[in-house]
Amino acid sequence: MNAIVSAPAARLVHVPLGERAYDILIGSGLIERAGHEIAARLKGRKAAIVTDENVAPLYLDALVASLEAAGIVSASLVLPAGEKTKSFEHLMTVCDAVLEARIERNDAVIALGGGVIGDLSGFAAGIVRRGLRFVQVPTSLLSQVDSSVGGKTGINTRHGKNLVGVFHQPDLVLADTDVLNTLSDREFRAGYAEVAKYGLIDKPDFFAWLEANWRQVFAGGVERAEAIATSCQAKSDVVVADERENGPRALLNLGHTFGHALEAATAYDSRRLVHGEGVAIGMVLAHEFSARLNLASPDDAKRVEAHLKTVGLPTRMDDIPGDLPPAEVLMDAIGQDKKVKGGKLTFILTHGIAQSFVADDVPSSEVLSFLKEKHPR
Amino acid sequence: MNAIVSAPAARLVHVPLGERAYDILIGSGLIERAGHEIAARLKGRKAAIVTDENVAPLYLDALVASLEAAGIVSASLVLPAGEKTKSFEHLMTVCDAVLEARIERNDAVIALGGGVIGDLSGFAAGIVRRGLRFVQVPTSLLSQVDSSVGGKTGINTRHGKNLVGVFHQPDLVLADTDVLNTLSDREFRAGYAEVAKYGLIDKPDFFAWLEANWRQVFAGGVERAEAIATSCQAKSDVVVADERENGPRALLNLGHTFGHALEAATAYDSRRLVHGEGVAIGMVLAHEFSARLNLASPDDAKRVEAHLKTVGLPTRMDDIPGDLPPAEVLMDAIGQDKKVKGGKLTFILTHGIAQSFVADDVPSSEVLSFLKEKHPR
Ligand SMILES: NC(=O)c1ccc[n+]([C@@H]2O[C@H](COP(=O)([O-])OP(=O)(O)OC[C@H]3O[C@@H](n4cnc5c(N)ncnc54)[C@H](O)[C@@H]3O)[C@@H](O)[C@H]2O)c1
Ligand SMILES: NC(=O)c1ccc[n+]([C@@H]2O[C@H](COP(=O)([O-])OP(=O)(O)OC[C@H]3O[C@@H](n4cnc5c(N)ncnc54)[C@H](O)[C@@H]3O)[C@@H](O)[C@H]2O)c1
Ligand SMILES: [Zn+2]
Ligand SMILES: [Zn+2]
Repeated sequence: MNAIVSAPAARLVHVPLGERAYDILIGSGLIERAGHEIAARLKGRKAAIVTDENVAPLYLDALVASLEAAGIVSASLVLPAGEKTKSFEHLMTVCDAVLEARIERNDAVIALGGGVIGDLSGFAAGIVRRGLRFVQVPTSLLSQVDSSVGGKTGINTRHGKNLVGVFHQPDLVLADTDVLNTLSDREFRAGYAEVAKYGLIDKPDFFAWLEANWRQVFAGGVERAEAIATSCQAKSDVVVADERENGPRALLNLGHTFGHALEAATAYDSRRLVHGEGVAIGMVLAHEFSARLNLASPDDAKRVEAHLKTVGLPTRMDDIPGDLPPAEVLMDAIGQDKKVKGGKLTFILTHGIAQSFVADDVPSSEVLSFLKEKHPR
Repeated sequence: MNAIVSAPAARLVHVPLGERAYDILIGSGLIERAGHEIAARLKGRKAAIVTDENVAPLYLDALVASLEAAGIVSASLVLPAGEKTKSFEHLMTVCDAVLEARIERNDAVIALGGGVIGDLSGFAAGIVRRGLRFVQVPTSLLSQVDSSVGGKTGINTRHGKNLVGVFHQPDLVLADTDVLNTLSDREFRAGYAEVAKYGLIDKPDFFAWLEANWRQVFAGGVERAEAIATSCQAKSDVVVADERENGPRALLNLGHTFGHALEAATAYDSRRLVHGEGVAIGMVLAHEFSARLNLASPDDAKRVEAHLKTVGLPTRMDDIPGDLPPAEVLMDAIGQDKKVKGGKLTFILTHGIAQSFVADDVPSSEVLSFLKEKHPR
């Protein structure tokens, strides 16, 4: 490994959160430059890398070498891949490994992987010694455009997804756009659902741009970096307006209430459904449900569905392989989801493309009959 | 249970932490008034009570009835008593019970018990749904004067005490001075070590007052409430100056670096040593070590030891029943303790009674030879 690495142009999104402010770098070759970028920002010279068994063989050596070249000693922990790794058991394993590596307050925990690794190790970084430095090196599209930005960390429990966790902002995010070339098409598409989400929340031009340019985003190159940077900026804007998710940040949940219920209903089995696929179906449902409530035109739901289908995403509950539980069970999962206040249902609904809003008084009877209609089993 | 409870005078210490500000009420009959005080401050009408098997038979019914009278529905979880309960396994149990009780953001987790229950359930309240309302009803003297104030929560791991946790301030602390009557003498004395600590940090008059009035504090009555309120105020002052323990708050660790090492060396076996006893021995050691470094007079160490001995606390390592590991092993525990920065040892030392200070460059060789001298095994 070469200690002197030339610095190709990277895009920079700054997240201005006061004393918790941080940079997101987006571009090519960032794993090779990681040691340099981290050493420039953090005082500590030790790191604990957490990654998964798919990502480790591809990128762990390069990251370790880059850290070493910058004078940072690292220990690595390789966990099983997949949503099930976001558990109390693995949280304990990560905390233990971080303590074993004698990581102190100025040293860093580094997440090298997708959202699963980021959420889990960010949580560990937030609780070991009541908070350690944390660097995200997101390697899936979903984690580059969504989970690595904003400081939400967590694990799943038998009661639902992400119900236990902390807010712990990273100190740096390094989104290397090259690593997405080894991501499966299916995972790339799943991440793309979140990219499209930013358009559908409040950026009509971005959604139209995606409709026109999605092929180039999938192929790589400047459009890919552009789409990722636009997404990170969008997420950053929302996070800065509402760091602890009391208000506007809820818009990021467009498609997620339905999506999470579907993930629960498929027991987080990634063979059947991954997060972004649940979000894709959930966004179509949110537009259809809004149309059913006469808030939006049914044409908007059709336009959303058409685009997501074009890129190869599932858009209907029936697209999920295997049986789904009855609508009542899905409703129950929605009720246990965290967007519940005083018993009433909070939903992200929309007045049309890029006109989403928070509705916090949605009658559950309406949701139930809608679900029964969409999923008549 | 009577829904109408007259309000005996309680002392109030306000902790002014901006949007995380809260009240500490100290006085007689507060468990019977808990429902009223909580309902006056929190919007939610559900609570999950966490307690232990010693405290539950004594006070759980009264607390539940008081909540009920104020319109708050509660679920209870009774855990084994003792330091070993501050574990990942029990954290998971508490999180699960809180989710099972469907506690939402405005509802509360209530800790009814000593520091073990407070630290564990405060941690759970800090991470379930990324933060729930939290009420401390401390029932041990130690928890009333120390652990229930300040927002430090956590659990132990095989690497050491309190190494995993979050800062999560309570919304209310209710310190009922009557409940201390059922506390064992030994536990009362252990808590008293922390009371004395506030004097030794920087309150010469308070320490002298304790030397004169300790019998009344042990017996109950106005002196007890006075000592607890003074302690809570002292802790509050330090916490407000340094909420996240980056600077002055470290003074609260007077006696704790040695104390924690002794707790680790006795495997957190409460038959041999409880936290406050470790702190008592640790404070004497801190004064003796300061004298050895020519920072303070040996007479001050003697005065500290004399008072702690008078109230019945252990003051020397040899007072601990059973064998202790060699000095080198104690040193290792000190090194793994969290007050370590870039490899150097941070200690709270003193220039004399009530003149403590943070020393962050203590050579470990000095500590080791001191330990060998005090504990020649
Ligand atoms: N914290 C947040 O704000 C937030 C936001 C959105 C989603 N999430 C969470 O993110 C998770 C989903 O993230 P995800 O989709 O990245 O899942 P993931 O981490 O499971 O990654 C998906 C799969 O791709 C593999 N992979 C990752 N990078 C690769 C690469 N470069 N090459 C080859 N394979 C690679 C992984 O090993 C895994 O098998 C969910 O748990 C979700 O709850 C969190
Ligand atoms: N968070 C902080 O800032 C902080 C500060 C200091 C100590 N601590 C922690 O506090 C813990 C020690 O607290 P503790 O001494 O209260 O321990 P504890 O909770 O184990 O209580 C001591 C014993 O007294 C019993 N007990 C409690 N109240 C009683 C009552 N009213 N009547 C009869 N029995 C009663 C308990 O069941 C237990 O057996 C340690 O884990 C320590 O790390 C935390
Ligand atoms: Zn998502
Ligand atoms: Zn203590």
